[in-house]
Amino acid sequence: MKSEKPNHIDSSAAGKLIARRKRKLDADELISKICEGNTTALSRAITLVESTASTHQQIAQQVLEGCLPHANQSVRIGITGVPGVGKSTFIEALGNHVIKNGKKLAVLAIDPSSSVSHGSILGDKTRMEQLSKNANAFIRPSAAGDSLGGVARKTREAIMLCEAAGYDVIFIETVGVGQSETAVHAMTDFFLLLKLAGAGDELQGIKRGIMEMADCIVINKADGENVNAAKHAKNAFAKALHLYPRKASDWQPKTKLCSAINREGITEIWELIESYFEQVKTSGFFEENRENQNIYWLKSSIENALKDRFFNNPKIQEALSKQLNAINAGETTPFLAAQLLLDLNNTQK
Amino acid sequence: MKSEKPNHIDSSAAGKLIARRKRKLDADELISKICEGNTTALSRAITLVESTASTHQQIAQQVLEGCLPHANQSVRIGITGVPGVGKSTFIEALGNHVIKNGKKLAVLAIDPSSSVSHGSILGDKTRMEQLSKNANAFIRPSAAGDSLGGVARKTREAIMLCEAAGYDVIFIETVGVGQSETAVHAMTDFFLLLKLAGAGDELQGIKRGIMEMADCIVINKADGENVNAAKHAKNAFAKALHLYPRKASDWQPKTKLCSAINREGITEIWELIESYFEQVKTSGFFEENRENQNIYWLKSSIENALKDRFFNNPKIQEALSKQLNAINAGETTPFLAAQLLLDLNNTQK
Repeated sequence: MKSEKPNHIDSSAAGKLIARRKRKLDADELISKICEGNTTALSRAITLVESTASTHQQIAQQVLEGCLPHANQSVRIGITGVPGVGKSTFIEALGNHVIKNGKKLAVLAIDPSSSVSHGSILGDKTRMEQLSKNANAFIRPSAAGDSLGGVARKTREAIMLCEAAGYDVIFIETVGVGQSETAVHAMTDFFLLLKLAGAGDELQGIKRGIMEMADCIVINKADGENVNAAKHAKNAFAKALHLYPRKASDWQPKTKLCSAINREGITEIWELIESYFEQVKTSGFFEENRENQNIYWLKSSIENALKDRFFNNPKIQEALSKQLNAINAGETTPFLAAQLLLDLNNTQK
Repeated sequence: MKSEKPNHIDSSAAGKLIARRKRKLDADELISKICEGNTTALSRAITLVESTASTHQQIAQQVLEGCLPHANQSVRIGITGVPGVGKSTFIEALGNHVIKNGKKLAVLAIDPSSSVSHGSILGDKTRMEQLSKNANAFIRPSAAGDSLGGVARKTREAIMLCEAAGYDVIFIETVGVGQSETAVHAMTDFFLLLKLAGAGDELQGIKRGIMEMADCIVINKADGENVNAAKHAKNAFAKALHLYPRKASDWQPKTKLCSAINREGITEIWELIESYFEQVKTSGFFEENRENQNIYWLKSSIENALKDRFFNNPKIQEALSKQLNAINAGETTPFLAAQLLLDLNNTQK
């Protein structure tokens, strides 16, 4: 009996070793296939990144580390606009133009409202008919997740994988739920806001700070009877943009007209985007901005983790609800209660 | 020699005991004087609250605990507006009206930009000539502090002390630096935004979410040649306010005209404020809102403390700068780096 136990432990340890080696092999194979531009491997890696299973996460992190030296080579373009603005038609039109210019394009999305990963883009994929058939385009529905932080992390990691797979241009689309525009802005180099003439959502755009983030405002559906209203809107937005202080990029945001469905204005918009990248790569802002974005994601990941750990601690939860009662009964102040909870958290460790 | 040591310890312990008793006596005396409405004691207690010396903080906390049962009885009114809008003239006019109605008024300020405690209100005090001479008014310059969080805490504590001293109405003024309006909004029951006709800062107000917080927008300096422009501005603001979704308080924000210097419109504004308090005290929102504010201050105090402790840890600072270099060199991702730093923080404890 006694002699069996060490054997048992040995075989278990061996089993773990084999499993670890297997994961390493899986990861190595994925890395080399991704770097060859294999879209099946890319899709599989993104699925692993999105998975909550710990084995999947272990492989995903190995794949990410292996892909890192090949990442960071793309231009990342954020595209946002309210539903109905024609985002998928616009992405199809601009995307095809980009591919005709000899680039490889990946389209990702952030949509924290689609908790089962089948958000707007899956429907869009069928609407992006030409793009989804193009061998140089990779379209991926939005990542699933309970929190914007989680979705943002997965999207950032998917960007790196796409870059390693050789995609030169990455579009990150968002439908503008909650703070998702801020998240997209914090992971892209250029932020494009799609608008309609007379849609009356100008106040929303100003209020939520979206106009302030825009490098370009495109008035879509500038066709037929809409042309004059679109021109009027373009001027109004141009005026509003001038009220904002100069951007850190030193780029003056532009307004453009476009009819995505008629493929009008697309060439000019891409030329504008190219002139932006020329300017910020020359000035050094491109690199500087990416470094600041890295700091932002590093700090916000840490802050979220610190908060989650504190407030998910059962002892803290119990004491917190007692303290809230005491505050509302006028027996303590929020600041004294905070100190008590922080002290409790320290002594517990 | 040996016999002296215990004596020495004893006398030191006795010394500490005496010091503690002394602080307790100081605190008890302050508490009873504050509750009698003694303004010298009130001023002294606020100074202790603002002090960073640990003995002062110990007395301050005892005084606060003693005053708590007598706090929470006032109405707290936030007043904001850009420099030049006539805030001190307005506060003087509205304040005198409030006192004539038989109330006691305290005026506090949040101004994180005045790090030496001699911010706008100290100058204002001389400009609030009538008010500063009135026995039923207590005017206190803004609290000093390095961070908005620190200033906010001190102001919240000063509010409680003023309430214990029998002040029925508390004005909390801010000049609108950084996030100070949000802080004032989070510690008041009613939020009043002062505006001028044609000042062109509407966009700022919308952008920074200040208009959204307002329960009332008062167009000041509606006198002489300004009257028509002020009426025009009043209508424009009323229209803009209707674009916002209904407030949790179920209160429809109002716009009012006023000439603070001529004491015109003041009675109507105070009647409006009284009707607000009647509505929210009946609906239960008044209490509900104060409870939510307590939760907000509790959570934000904890979050700030967690962040400060983490990022002020020298081991973390060292590792953080290494990780930032590694991220920018493409050797790791912000998320992997965050995990590494969080693990380091845990093992260190």
